[in-house]
Amino acid sequence: MFFVVVVGPAGSGKSHLVDALGDWLEFNELDVARVNLDPAAEWLPYEPDVDVRDYIEARSIMEKHRLGPNGALVASVDMLMNYVDKIRSEVEATKANYVLIDTPGQMELFAFRDTGPYVVREIIAGERAAALFIFDAVFASNPRSLASSLFLALSTRLRLGLPQVNAVSKADLLKPEQMEEIQEQVNSPENLYNALVAGGLDPLMAEAAARSLEALVPEGSTAPAALRFVSALSGYGLDDVYAALQQVLVGGEDFYTEEPSPRL
Amino acid sequence: MFFVVVVGPAGSGKSHLVDALGDWLEFNELDVARVNLDPAAEWLPYEPDVDVRDYIEARSIMEKHRLGPNGALVASVDMLMNYVDKIRSEVEATKANYVLIDTPGQMELFAFRDTGPYVVREIIAGERAAALFIFDAVFASNPRSLASSLFLALSTRLRLGLPQVNAVSKADLLKPEQMEEIQEQVNSPENLYNALVAGGLDPLMAEAAARSLEALVPEGSTAPAALRFVSALSGYGLDDVYAALQQVLVGGEDFYTEEPSPRL
Repeated sequence: MFFVVVVGPAGSGKSHLVDALGDWLEFNELDVARVNLDPAAEWLPYEPDVDVRDYIEARSIMEKHRLGPNGALVASVDMLMNYVDKIRSEVEATKANYVLIDTPGQMELFAFRDTGPYVVREIIAGERAAALFIFDAVFASNPRSLASSLFLALSTRLRLGLPQVNAVSKADLLKPEQMEEIQEQVNSPENLYNALVAGGLDPLMAEAAARSLEALVPEGSTAPAALRFVSALSGYGLDDVYAALQQVLVGGEDFYTEEPSPRL
Repeated sequence: MFFVVVVGPAGSGKSHLVDALGDWLEFNELDVARVNLDPAAEWLPYEPDVDVRDYIEARSIMEKHRLGPNGALVASVDMLMNYVDKIRSEVEATKANYVLIDTPGQMELFAFRDTGPYVVREIIAGERAAALFIFDAVFASNPRSLASSLFLALSTRLRLGLPQVNAVSKADLLKPEQMEEIQEQVNSPENLYNALVAGGLDPLMAEAAARSLEALVPEGSTAPAALRFVSALSGYGLDDVYAALQQVLVGGEDFYTEEPSPRL
């Protein structure tokens, strides 16, 4: 059983990526379990195999404990800790090859509190796991936001303590030449440094961003780039994200087929 | 008019710091305006002079638009954009020396969407401003979390585009020897690098964290350390935070008194 924990800031498209990546894996004949860990999800693009809302629902917490929306969200995410055993059992029962874990909408309630690291550790229970950190393409299209997103990715990497694949989601929003430009920038720490300084960033910050890029390349990765581009809408880059996850999870060995798939 | 925008992850103690810092400034004979920008605040430790809840309330948004707590939070924070002119007028009318701006509980809805940078820019309207980024003392007390918090601080710094003072809140939770140890670590990039590697961090990450620390020292700051320690509970470090803000806002000139105050 391999675990992929999908994290990213509010609105980055976590649930849509879980949906699209799940379908892609199934198309390639893997058994997939989709786990929803967001107690405040109102609607999901996929049918979860394991759903924390069977145990906790932010809306009911709000009514029952007379909390405002903010307090209800914090409380409901923190309550995940009480149900890790149940979730773990349900996950095991799926006997899936790949377990995709969709996390709460507000990343900071999960990754930057005690909840995320604890819940992830308990659900994974020592099996192979990776985080898939995503951020919105619009944040990649200017140097300041790109650097900011890299720092956020590294911050999350340290909180969850998992090998991490980093991806720019909603790649369909980027023009081919924009994507090429960003890819060139993140191709090496030196390129990033030069692009950021050319974009007006303070050299000390550009240096920190370049070092973050270097630190973000997952261990065992043979690709020089720390960032992948993916679109849940068009399916672009799902194969690349899968390959990056495989490298991290099993050192590049292709897990789902003996023969190279014609689709790849 | 000087603006201080208090930001930090959920639960870091933004509102309590606005309360304590406001009282401290008033005790030192400054006129202070406290501005609440959190449409989902249920209770505040201070009486806001300007309150966005007069225009937007997350709870009503939820009922009116039939949103869940998550959707209501996102929508209410994004709606801040529609009221910046009104908030700006109210702020001007206070004629305060120091304007303390308390931001939404979930930092990522503010800083990592378009809202925060836009709203802050419009309210400040070209006057002197600084961000005060805070994170909880518990995150400073182990190397991984400390490094993670530094990356988050730098990520926020880039999003808001303001000179930034960085502080560890709830310093009362740290024992004096813990605080000394952390202070030693953040005293120089080299110290931090060594402490992080000794704590088991990957050298590439430790290097990125060290460079982040370097980039976090605010321009014009004469102190070597990028981090202050403050407690809203005990009042510890409020003078230090004030001094750091002054350095950033007016280059170290003491603004509130002709004579050195005996309290300092």
